[in-house]
Amino acid sequence: MPERLALGFDIGGTKIAAGVVDEDGRVLARRGTETPSTDPMAVLDAISTITEELRSDHHVRAIGIGAAGFVDATGSTVLFSPHLAWRNEPLRDAVARRTRLPVLVDNDANASGWAEWRFGAAQNEPDLVLITLGTGIGGAVVIDGQPYRGRYGLAGEFGHMQVVPDGLPCECGNRGCWEQYASGRVLTRRGREAAASGTELGRRLLDAVGGDPEAVTGRQVTAAAEGGDEEAVAWLADVGDWLGVGIAGLAAALDPGVVVIGGGVSDAGELLLGPAREAFSRTLTGRGYRTEARIVRAHLGPEAGLVGAADMARLTARRRRQASPGARVRVRAAGRSGRSPRRRR
Amino acid sequence: MPERLALGFDIGGTKIAAGVVDEDGRVLARRGTETPSTDPMAVLDAISTITEELRSDHHVRAIGIGAAGFVDATGSTVLFSPHLAWRNEPLRDAVARRTRLPVLVDNDANASGWAEWRFGAAQNEPDLVLITLGTGIGGAVVIDGQPYRGRYGLAGEFGHMQVVPDGLPCECGNRGCWEQYASGRVLTRRGREAAASGTELGRRLLDAVGGDPEAVTGRQVTAAAEGGDEEAVAWLADVGDWLGVGIAGLAAALDPGVVVIGGGVSDAGELLLGPAREAFSRTLTGRGYRTEARIVRAHLGPEAGLVGAADMARLTARRRRQASPGARVRVRAAGRSGRSPRRRR
Repeated sequence: MPERLALGFDIGGTKIAAGVVDEDGRVLARRGTETPSTDPMAVLDAISTITEELRSDHHVRAIGIGAAGFVDATGSTVLFSPHLAWRNEPLRDAVARRTRLPVLVDNDANASGWAEWRFGAAQNEPDLVLITLGTGIGGAVVIDGQPYRGRYGLAGEFGHMQVVPDGLPCECGNRGCWEQYASGRVLTRRGREAAASGTELGRRLLDAVGGDPEAVTGRQVTAAAEGGDEEAVAWLADVGDWLGVGIAGLAAALDPGVVVIGGGVSDAGELLLGPAREAFSRTLTGRGYRTEARIVRAHLGPEAGLVGAADMARLTARRRRQASPGARVRVRAAGRSGRSPRRRR
Repeated sequence: MPERLALGFDIGGTKIAAGVVDEDGRVLARRGTETPSTDPMAVLDAISTITEELRSDHHVRAIGIGAAGFVDATGSTVLFSPHLAWRNEPLRDAVARRTRLPVLVDNDANASGWAEWRFGAAQNEPDLVLITLGTGIGGAVVIDGQPYRGRYGLAGEFGHMQVVPDGLPCECGNRGCWEQYASGRVLTRRGREAAASGTELGRRLLDAVGGDPEAVTGRQVTAAAEGGDEEAVAWLADVGDWLGVGIAGLAAALDPGVVVIGGGVSDAGELLLGPAREAFSRTLTGRGYRTEARIVRAHLGPEAGLVGAADMARLTARRRRQASPGARVRVRAAGRSGRSPRRRR
């Protein structure tokens, strides 16, 4: 039997990453381009072009798209994307028409969560809570081997839970959202302030980016912390502390076995996760009378989104083939590798 | 075929309520007693006594127990109860030994959530988030027709999500827990303060309880608000506001179709739910691009816990009978009324 391959896309605010993914989550070929963020039609063109390129060498059976935005519960429409021009964009059907392949669209964090559950940090767990730390905080939930998307597809937006009444303003229009305290933007904000005001760490960060304070991001802060800078270490610990308290809140509500931390900020590793675990254990309700969730770093890195999107699309297309009247064989629900990400409705 | 009856218990910090419940969630007979809260053996005796009494007139097939405490994921052991003397109490087996009936133990809020999903406010929904407002805040989640209990059985403890950093101290050992701001204790606290300091509302509350400030509870505050007292109305609106903001956070994470508000404080009806809906719509992330959860009052009142516990026990016992080798007929998964609350692991 030929390998079952699917094409995965991760469509972010600045970049489109794509890859051909096999049944074991391996990426066999890659493509990438910048996101034409102001023009939905141009995004569609980019997806089509990459698909045709990768199809010429690989027999792909489905396309999965993880998109930075709100995706409806049927996996067809991007309702809204803060960084892209999509508003009620019927992406699934548009891509399917162009490519003549079955297409699945999901939120990018859901795609990453699925990948970590299938092939990564939560491989042997029934459930997973994923928290992706980038400029903001995204999230995903897998329950009993199924992606949990909520009633209308928008579950997992952990970054917009309020943690400080009348706190820092958030792009979403609220104040005090968790992502204002526990994401990469905190490091970027502090780094730029330090660079502008000329502290010792600030000068170090400026040197690292060639002199423009606005070029400083969390990445340089993490590098400084890894180099032993105490102030940078303290900043990461502070973000980790907010992270741990927030995870304790999620654990009060969801009681997961494992919480996987992904996204670029998780590259800081123990400098972030150590303080997060400490704050979690300090603030988890019922501590001492319960088994606590493990807090672990994601395994799959930045390709998790495209791997998860491809895998969900492959499994969903397979399930549809099996369920269709023309299918010759009905395969019984198999073990883990055969589990298919049913949409719950 | 004889009616399929089960016995439901709701074991709280002060009262034990029990009832014989039929397949449609009707309570056919009732018993109640005070909870012997310091002695686990005495609780067991009370359960046995009530069971024998109710069995003499009704052919019950199973016992369901909703307990105010942390119940493990297998439904056998009360890990910890803040108001009772249970610590790792193997309640299921103890009751089963005494009564020779199949027994299911769950958290009391989970039992109420199941009842509201089966027979109450969320009858036609695939999912449910229940928030019970009493002295504290309890909660339950039903996903795709199954109670969601989390990895270790402790999901739904919404009241202990932190909403104010370094906020009011909570009995759980943390500070700033949601239940310190959005539960009945806020009304009780304010009512007692007003009673002690002799404000107009305070005098009114004192009159209602016969002169002892410590006898004032949220119930009198709600009565005053219903009578048109502006200060009491404002207190309920404030609790409703905190409630709505917290629900917006839960909706960011879980995106439920419906949020059911139960518990004694929900008796305030629109005086509480109006402000809650307003705060929810004001602070829900992505508002304007999504379908918002409906926030509705629970339908089943204080008997929800015993009804839900009985129903879960009845369905679980039936499923076990059907799955056992001696069962003559295997019944296919049926419609809603036949759904059984599978434990997810």
